[in-house]
Amino acid sequence: MRERLITSPPRDDGRSATPGLLPGSSLDQFHAWWAQRHRASHFSVERISFPELDAWAFDDDTGNLVHSSGKFFTVEGLQVRTDGLDIWSQPVINQPEIGVLGIIVKEFDGVLHCLMQAKMEPGNVNTLQLSPTVQATRSNYTRVHRGAATRYLEYFLGHRRGKVLVDVLQSEQGAWFWRKRNRNMVVQVTEDIPLHEDYCWLSLAQLRELSRIDNLINMDARTVLSCFPFEPSGTDSGDEFTAALIRSCRSGGGAGGARHTTGEILSWFTDAKTRCDWTARLTPLSKVTGWIRGEEEISDEHQRHFRIIAVAVEAGTREVKRWTQPLLFPRGEGRAVFLVRQFDGVLHVLVQARPEYGLMDLVEMAPTVHLLPGEELSSVHEDFLRHSLSSPDVRVHYDQVLSEEGGRFYEALTRYQIIEVGEDVPAEPPPNFRWMTVRQLMDLLRHGHYLNIEARSLLACLHSLY
Amino acid sequence: MRERLITSPPRDDGRSATPGLLPGSSLDQFHAWWAQRHRASHFSVERISFPELDAWAFDDDTGNLVHSSGKFFTVEGLQVRTDGLDIWSQPVINQPEIGVLGIIVKEFDGVLHCLMQAKMEPGNVNTLQLSPTVQATRSNYTRVHRGAATRYLEYFLGHRRGKVLVDVLQSEQGAWFWRKRNRNMVVQVTEDIPLHEDYCWLSLAQLRELSRIDNLINMDARTVLSCFPFEPSGTDSGDEFTAALIRSCRSGGGAGGARHTTGEILSWFTDAKTRCDWTARLTPLSKVTGWIRGEEEISDEHQRHFRIIAVAVEAGTREVKRWTQPLLFPRGEGRAVFLVRQFDGVLHVLVQARPEYGLMDLVEMAPTVHLLPGEELSSVHEDFLRHSLSSPDVRVHYDQVLSEEGGRFYEALTRYQIIEVGEDVPAEPPPNFRWMTVRQLMDLLRHGHYLNIEARSLLACLHSLY
Repeated sequence: MRERLITSPPRDDGRSATPGLLPGSSLDQFHAWWAQRHRASHFSVERISFPELDAWAFDDDTGNLVHSSGKFFTVEGLQVRTDGLDIWSQPVINQPEIGVLGIIVKEFDGVLHCLMQAKMEPGNVNTLQLSPTVQATRSNYTRVHRGAATRYLEYFLGHRRGKVLVDVLQSEQGAWFWRKRNRNMVVQVTEDIPLHEDYCWLSLAQLRELSRIDNLINMDARTVLSCFPFEPSGTDSGDEFTAALIRSCRSGGGAGGARHTTGEILSWFTDAKTRCDWTARLTPLSKVTGWIRGEEEISDEHQRHFRIIAVAVEAGTREVKRWTQPLLFPRGEGRAVFLVRQFDGVLHVLVQARPEYGLMDLVEMAPTVHLLPGEELSSVHEDFLRHSLSSPDVRVHYDQVLSEEGGRFYEALTRYQIIEVGEDVPAEPPPNFRWMTVRQLMDLLRHGHYLNIEARSLLACLHSLY
Repeated sequence: MRERLITSPPRDDGRSATPGLLPGSSLDQFHAWWAQRHRASHFSVERISFPELDAWAFDDDTGNLVHSSGKFFTVEGLQVRTDGLDIWSQPVINQPEIGVLGIIVKEFDGVLHCLMQAKMEPGNVNTLQLSPTVQATRSNYTRVHRGAATRYLEYFLGHRRGKVLVDVLQSEQGAWFWRKRNRNMVVQVTEDIPLHEDYCWLSLAQLRELSRIDNLINMDARTVLSCFPFEPSGTDSGDEFTAALIRSCRSGGGAGGARHTTGEILSWFTDAKTRCDWTARLTPLSKVTGWIRGEEEISDEHQRHFRIIAVAVEAGTREVKRWTQPLLFPRGEGRAVFLVRQFDGVLHVLVQARPEYGLMDLVEMAPTVHLLPGEELSSVHEDFLRHSLSSPDVRVHYDQVLSEEGGRFYEALTRYQIIEVGEDVPAEPPPNFRWMTVRQLMDLLRHGHYLNIEARSLLACLHSLY
């Protein structure tokens, strides 16, 4: 059984290379360039069976799905235990090496622009998404796969390194990855740098506009953008919500306006970690219970969670031309929501301290509500949250479907929402929730282990609202 | 073979309870009280063989040394791998639960005092050491061992909680523990609290004085004291070193005077973590290679590292009266050194980004030089460090032997030194070192995963120098 999932026509090699998108271009020009990138790309992804994988196989001893080089990533088992009892096990993607997600920024005519990439990933629902300048695993940039060198990497790690504005390890999906982190970097350059055809210069304002389009800005771009240290430069706008949001970007960190001090927030978070009474560890995939390994996929018996599948990929503008790999394929769409509320004219975000089995530090700050694909609203314990999510009386400021990492997940989509609520959502929420300002979240993003990937995505979306 | 290690006479139960040490007492009064506590304590520790352990046994499947309750801690294996190859394995103490190390502070006559405890631990070289108000594992305070309730715990976790000044998870020995963290807390109270006979009120100045005595202030007290957010209140003293130290406590965090900005420090640290190319995981103790399990101890073949031993303990003033447990017994004394140097009148500490196999986040900021027990100065790669440590031309400001955690380690001693150097130690050190101010270290201590336990001990010692 072979299923052809995405196909584009191969590129005409006689055509001359198209330039990248220059700074100062309009969004119309961006869309024309983007359509052109789509036409120029050749990409096909087929599902294959596990035995058809090249260089990937199930290890005889452990049952883990591993690459013959011992590099890239492995699919292993995750075992959760509490009070000496095993309570849950599942497959998990283990990729201990730290990759680089980096955006180059440069001023053109006084306006800061970001160098973004049109990048294909095998799991992308729409082939191409807008990615950071550099998005490379350690295997990529140390060239384990003997492909081309990673373009622009020298501006982050090499002799051409720009001024470092952001440089922090941040976690990725705790439900599917084992303690995965990537190095989120932003570097500012002043020199001229070559513009390759797959790259475009976009201003922050343009990126914020584009974040209102479904499945365009990829997860890796969102996490780096969330770490940008810039406050909005404008004065309070006439719109009450925008004014409250801008005040939120300036409240906290000693400036007042926040409901809690940083010390109180950190203590609340430490308390939440201390309450977490389970531990997780890697286990051989063959010891995972309740999951079935077939020829085509590994799935849980009740078909509620996700599958591990295998694909063959052919690409014209990636570092290598053809490869096979496993991917994690969720069942349906996830949902991640920030509830926000104004207190004394300052917008606050209701943040959840949420344990996830695959997180290195067990608990991170998460969206107010996060439903994994397959989870129902009824699984949310708190009445006020279920009410807010189904009420017509709330103001929905952001509501888009965005993609998770297409290099490891197959068509993993999440509906991201920012919903403003009123006094029916309590000022004193249950113990695992806290109202925080945007500035407080931004300050914590200088450090790892605080905001999880879905919360960072939502923070990037929140910045698109002013 | 039984070896009686520490014995004190049992307490005369007819005697009336002695009160704790009141605030405002002199250090002479402290020492008299301390001697009295020694006399009043009954404590004996004997080495026993593994089969003599109660409720502890080697698991048939894994060979791990475990307690029958599934709680407390286990001795398991740690496996280190790089590029798909196993490069090192060793026994390791795994205690995933998070305990509380907390100090109550209160003002008396305008002077802040700390409530400290005279506490016995089986591994202490001298039975009693000065400990935090509360030093309790989760098993302790949830009363797994059915002993008495943890005294004063309600001021940290219960209804009597004071104003929280410090509340952060900090790591412990990465060479011996698997990802161990404890919750470091300082709470300030205003109410009157009862003073039990094993407790004393000491001012910060008195605690600094007492930190110049070998093996008096225990590791748990040092780590909590290192997290105290107080800057020295005095003006610059006439002494040049003290003035440079006080300036160091105020330099950084936007105030200038530091050689590097916080952003530069964080980027350097992220870079160090990214360079770390091995991974560690738990493995069954029976799969650890190069270590031998006998009746009395587990030891490496070359007798270079440490042993796992078993002891029987009898105590009169602990929560329970008699118990047996494993301990980790190092071979000899460790050494931890901060090299410090003045730059433009501001003292800087040479901090090392040091990977340790048992650390959750792999790399933390460590002393300039840290030699584990059994390691020689010749194992230090950098010439300038070996030179400074053996040179008579340096100024040694602090040089004391202090104990590591006596609840898990048997007679684990480290020589802590703070040594001032001049221009022969480079202003631009090798990549894994950075000059930082005391204030920069203090700011990072609001968060976990930054300073390792030995660096925190040295920071507490550094505060004793003004």
